[in-house]
Parts: sequence; structure tokens; C-alpha cells
Amino acid sequence: MNKIIVVGAVAGGATCASQIRRLDKESEIIIFEKDRDMSFANCGLPYYIGQVITERDKLLPITPETFKNKKDITVKTYHEVIEINDSKQTVTVLNRQTNEKFEETYDKLILSPGASANTLGFESDMIFTLRNMEDTDAIDQYINKHQAKKALVVGAGYISLEVLENLYHRGLDVTLIHRSESVNKLMDQDMNQAIFDELNNRNITYRLNEEITKVEGHTVTFKSGIQEDYDLIVEGVGTHPNSNFIQSSNIKLDEKGFIPVNDKFETNIPNIYALGDVISSFYRHVDLKAQVPLAWGAHRGASVIAEQFAGNQNITFKGYLGANIVKFFDYTFSSVGVKPSELNQFDYKMVEVTSGAHAGYYPGNSDIHLRVYFNKDDRQLLRAAAVGKEGVDKRIDVLTMAMMNGMTVDELTEFEVAYAPPYSHPKDLINMIGYKSRDL
Amino acid sequence: MNKIIVVGAVAGGATCASQIRRLDKESEIIIFEKDRDMSFANCGLPYYIGQVITERDKLLPITPETFKNKKDITVKTYHEVIEINDSKQTVTVLNRQTNEKFEETYDKLILSPGASANTLGFESDMIFTLRNMEDTDAIDQYINKHQAKKALVVGAGYISLEVLENLYHRGLDVTLIHRSESVNKLMDQDMNQAIFDELNNRNITYRLNEEITKVEGHTVTFKSGIQEDYDLIVEGVGTHPNSNFIQSSNIKLDEKGFIPVNDKFETNIPNIYALGDVISSFYRHVDLKAQVPLAWGAHRGASVIAEQFAGNQNITFKGYLGANIVKFFDYTFSSVGVKPSELNQFDYKMVEVTSGAHAGYYPGNSDIHLRVYFNKDDRQLLRAAAVGKEGVDKRIDVLTMAMMNGMTVDELTEFEVAYAPPYSHPKDLINMIGYKSRDL
Repeated sequence: MNKIIVVGAVAGGATCASQIRRLDKESEIIIFEKDRDMSFANCGLPYYIGQVITERDKLLPITPETFKNKKDITVKTYHEVIEINDSKQTVTVLNRQTNEKFEETYDKLILSPGASANTLGFESDMIFTLRNMEDTDAIDQYINKHQAKKALVVGAGYISLEVLENLYHRGLDVTLIHRSESVNKLMDQDMNQAIFDELNNRNITYRLNEEITKVEGHTVTFKSGIQEDYDLIVEGVGTHPNSNFIQSSNIKLDEKGFIPVNDKFETNIPNIYALGDVISSFYRHVDLKAQVPLAWGAHRGASVIAEQFAGNQNITFKGYLGANIVKFFDYTFSSVGVKPSELNQFDYKMVEVTSGAHAGYYPGNSDIHLRVYFNKDDRQLLRAAAVGKEGVDKRIDVLTMAMMNGMTVDELTEFEVAYAPPYSHPKDLINMIGYKSRDL
Repeated sequence: MNKIIVVGAVAGGATCASQIRRLDKESEIIIFEKDRDMSFANCGLPYYIGQVITERDKLLPITPETFKNKKDITVKTYHEVIEINDSKQTVTVLNRQTNEKFEETYDKLILSPGASANTLGFESDMIFTLRNMEDTDAIDQYINKHQAKKALVVGAGYISLEVLENLYHRGLDVTLIHRSESVNKLMDQDMNQAIFDELNNRNITYRLNEEITKVEGHTVTFKSGIQEDYDLIVEGVGTHPNSNFIQSSNIKLDEKGFIPVNDKFETNIPNIYALGDVISSFYRHVDLKAQVPLAWGAHRGASVIAEQFAGNQNITFKGYLGANIVKFFDYTFSSVGVKPSELNQFDYKMVEVTSGAHAGYYPGNSDIHLRVYFNKDDRQLLRAAAVGKEGVDKRIDVLTMAMMNGMTVDELTEFEVAYAPPYSHPKDLINMIGYKSRDL
């Protein structure tokens, strides 16, 4: 019987504890969560603000009480691990409600502290970031209490885009600013045109190369010289790993504060594991480091760690492919593989196709723009990206499976699509990528 | 320069001629098509009857004139190849409009004659089958001319289901009968329950274990003793390969009249190739013969033959996976791999999961029932089937890609789904199949 301490009770930590309990009915498992809630549904938060999701309970499916009763796992919320002594195998915990500190020993320590939102540092009651259910409640309550009508979204990453769409759905007059011209950075920039089209179609104001310089009361002054009044500002200006408390230990952090882990999610210190947004890891299909702070990786890490603990040492992590997807109004943007910014590390070729999501004669069709990058020499897939209103998720998921198996672009001709007119083409976009690549 | 004769100008033949021309600008290419139209969109025909597709031109995208002008390929419609002399390398052609016969020599002969609909043999003007645009026009015109209101669909394969749905959409009062209890045979029978639910929801009458015994005027007598009047009967009672004309040659046919081909789509006779619904071939993932009369295979065959002709001998056919899909009202039924009737040739296990198509808290969700069969010993995927209202095509296409790569059920845990709440789960159904299989 082990004593297992988990830091963080969101996707990585809570899932990992649960997976460990599945295979190990004996060990004591304690999770320390610095914030109010456990296991909230991160990715649903913008949609709760948009009132697309109306049942708050659905975003908080598990409480410490039910976790204790159902799984015999102790979750202590408002408990922040502030220090790790990896030679003594103890953690120091701060009870944020009583301000008491105490030490806890561990046999195995699992770090899943996640990341926090960056802020621009302006002092204002109307400025928010969105990372957890507390932030969500605060934004929701602020809008109601102050009858907020005019909102500014700062940043154009995927969370900002989701927040903007949802504030718009809620009836707020929204404006988007972004400090550069690079929006939604996991996507090829030219494939983001639909973002601007969707904004224009709805007369949503946006300004690129724009920054806030001053916030006074409700008046916001911008780098461009423009002054405007807002009721609400949501900042989506990046995140940073919650790894400050680790600096006291011998656990290695990389230059950006992430914890490098191996294929067993082990850190450099025995008996200490890490998973979720705080780790840096590696790609599956190419020899390159990867940092993929998304939900799938947290769940996969949870399972691999549990299997390792249970002695199934051959179940390891084969690496990320970086699959990601975001809905923005009527469009879906999705990609997989190395990031656009990493392509310059490869000698690659690109092939692309724009075609209807399904047979042209069947109604309700819309175009998908699908692009695939592959290695010049071995012709293996490096990256794929797609944008469109329908069927984008399917094409990327299929290419993810191809990439996972080290397929070449030529082999995509052999993909036997399930075809009927409402779904695809007898020679689907995936096949067309393969056929077009013959001439490259 | 070769003289290439192609028999049949639908998906297989016309695509093959077109692909050959892409790589070979010199050879003479002639297609003989026994019927009226070339290159009609087979899979769209039921939807034209249902007036879901209203533009007839979209189903007939190419005419012999445009094919000649754009590709320098001669298409002779109403020209039926009735004999092959494979030692002299000639075909005998019947001009069905003039009743003249003539001989044509070939250097290469490509057979893509397709299949024809079986009929029950009752003499009646109101009985139709649906295989081509001529049939479609005949049904369409008959409904209009006779103001048909009450229709009987015989058979419950995927074409019958599509025809039934479309006659219903057009406002006809439809009844379905089927001679056994096995409907939509490519799907696991218990997963077809949604077919009956959809029929019941719309008060559409259906009777299983039912057959027509007599048709007199509009009065139909059934095996059950029931007598009913109908204005229209559409029979979907199977097909047979159009290979009678081949029996005069030395080309080998199998016991069901299909032409066995190898991985280059070669028949047993030099310089004679075959593709499309008339061939029998083999599975990709298991060592078993396969006959997959669907559009993807015809297109793939066309490309492989063209590459062979161009000297690219390493581009071969790796075999079918048998991916298929059908929409029936609000539901999608799809499967890939060996047929349910072929499973008994394997020592297999089955794992299944029923879960929402996307995150439970995001609106508009509906369940997918996903089932996977795998080999007991090497745990490789044998077959997958799914039914649901949304996201079924995606899961089967992803599993097709997995099967194409010989993956085990366990490796499905490693599939990195593109996750956001409207599309999937961080632990998607595909992953859950993998995780659940651990206990099997």
C-alpha cells in the first residue's frame, strides 16, 4: 500500500487519481487543489458564459464528497502545495482558508498543477481572465450585476475566440483586439481568413496590432490612440505553468517553467510524476519536443501513470500529435502535427485541396479547405490543417490516425472512405490529397 | 500507342478511361456503354426521386460530347459488348439502336459492366427497380403521370432504405416488406433497431417475413394473405453481375458470376482488366475474399489500372476494408471490416460503447453506439460498426484508417482526438473502445 499525493484536481489530477483507484483498491490517495472546484469542465466554460450551456451542474460533475464516497479518494480544495522536499518525500501544504501550513509525506507524488492565465496588469474591476469555474462565475455575475453591454476581448487565441463568440451570443456588443496579426496560432495564418469573415458578417469590430495602454474607470486607451468605453474586458493573453512552487525542489523545469517528462510521465526525480498543462513532452511522429496543453493529453497521461503504478510498464506514452480544434461561429478550424512555427525545421512539401464536405449534388454542402505538409524525403505526414463549416473534425481525426501510424502522403490514396452522398465523396478529400501529391 | 477498349461508362469505366488519359495522351480510348447515360451519379438517384436533389444535370455531370472534347475519349452509348474473343483480342459490339453488330480490336480491354438489379418477375407496369438514370427517370415520370400515392418498397438493403425514405419525403404513403428478418445486412442486426424506430415514429407500415405472391392490376397479394392496392412498387431484391457476355471468353468467373482479379485488377487473361461491381477481390486486413460493390473501390481500381498502364507497377491494390454507410431518416448506419456473416471465420472478441457524439454538457447531443470486433490472438481489428444521429461517419472513418494500418484494439487508447465540446470527448468513443478492451 502506497500513499499517493496528487497536486491539482482538474482534468489531469482527478482523472489520474481515479485511474489509479481503478487498478489499485488499497493505496491512500489524497488530492490537494488550490482553488475552489475540482474536475470542472474547462472546455465548457466559454459556453456557460454564452448561456449555450445553461445547467451549471453539468460543468461540475464531481464534488469531493462524491469522489470520496465513490472512489475513496480524498480531495482537499483550497489546499495549495507550496513546497516539495523530494529527499524527505514530503510536500508542504497551505490551507488557504485557515492559512495553516502542514507537511504531508508521500510514496508517489503526481504533479498536475496546470497553468494560469497571464494578465496585462491593469488595475480594474471590469478586467477578467478565464481559466476556471470561479472566473466563469465572476464574469457571469459581473455581466448580470452591472448589466454589461459593451465587452472587449483581448487576444485572438482559441479561448479568446470562444469567449468572443459566447459574449456575442449573450447579446453583448463585443470588440476584439490583438497585439499582432497572427491570430489562432495553431492554424496556418492564411486559413484563418474565415475568422475575419465571420467577424465582418456580424459587424463585430476587431483591430489587429492593437494594445491597451491605459484603463481608467470604464475608459480604455489604446496604442492606436483610440479611446473607448467598455463595461467588461476579458483578457486571453496566454498562460504560464503553475510551477513556481516546484523551484524549491530538485525537479527539473525547462526554460519556460514546464516540467519535462519521459514516456512514463516521470520527472527527473524518482517517485515524482507530472501530467497535464504543466509538462513538456515530445511529438509522436517527428523527433521534436512538444508542449500540448490540451485535454486529451491530460487524460492519456492519467491512464499511463495508473498503468505504470499497476506494474504495466509496457504501457507508455508514444508522444503527442498536437490535434486541436476550435469552433468559431459557423466555422471549424482544426489541425494536427507540428505547429506552423515548427515547419521550418523540416524539408517539407505542401499539398492542399478545397472541395465540398460531401457529394456536390447533395444539398447543404459547404467547402472544406484541407492542407497537408509532408517530409520531402520519406514523404511522411508532418502536419494537416482544415477549415470549413462541416466535416472538418472528421478529416483531421482521420489524418491524425494516419499520422499516428507514420503514413506517407501517397498512402492516403488507399484510404477507403465510408461513402454516401450526405457524408463524403467516393474520392474523398483525404484521397485527393494523396492523388495530388503524386505530382510533387 | 495502344488501343484501349473499356466496357461500361459509369463509375469504374469512365473514371478509369479518364485516369488513363491523364497519364497517357497518345492511346486511343473507346468506351462502350450499353445503356443511355454515362457517368451518372448512382448514389444520388434515390435523392432525385425524393426531390432532395432537384437539378437533374448534377446527376449527369459528363456527356460523351464533353468527354470527347475535354479528354479525347470516345464514348458510345447504347453499344453493348456481347462477346469477347480473347485470343484474337477483339470484342463484338451490338449497336442497340440500329441492331448492327461489329467487331473491334483491342490492345488492352477493361471490363466495368457493373451489376443489374434482380427482379421478382411479376408482370406489371407499376413495378420498377433502381440502378441507373433511366430507371430514375421512369419512376419519376410514373409518379407524376399516374399521381402515384401508395408505394410498396420490396427489400430492406441500403438502396431500398434510401428509396423508401425518399418516396416518403416526396409525400407518398409507403410500405416496406422484406422476405426475412435480416435487414440492412452489412450492419449487425441488433444495431438496426433504429431503422424500425424511425419507421414507427413516422407510422410507416413494414412487414418482415413477407413476400409478394401475386400482382393483378394494382392489387398485390402477399404470402401473409394480406391484399392491398398500390400505385407503385420498387423492388430492391439484390443484384447480379453483368457478366453473361463474358462466358463466351476464357476469362474466369467465380461461382456467382463475378470476375476474380489480382492486386493489379488483372483477370486471368493477359491484357484484360476488370473493376467495379463485377469483380471479386480480397480484404486488406484479413486473408479472405471480398466482394465490395461500392463507389470507392471503382475509383481506386480506375487509378491503379491507369498507374499500371503507365508503368508504375508498384502501385497496386492492397485490398478492401468494406467501409459502407447509409443514412436512414435521422440516423446513420456505418460499418467497416468483415461482414457480420463472415465473423464466424475468426476467433474474435467484441467490445462496445454507447456515448454522446460530443461532450455531454454541450447542446444538441445524441448517442452513438459503437462496436468493435477484434482477433482474440493478435488483437487486430476485424470489424467496426456504429449507429447514431451524428458523428457516426467520423468514428468509422477513423477506425477504417486504424484497420488499414493493422492496428490492435489496445492501440485505440493512443488515438489523439481533436477535442472541443461540440465535436468529441477528451476521452473519445474510439479511446473508450481501447480502454474497455483492456479487461477482455
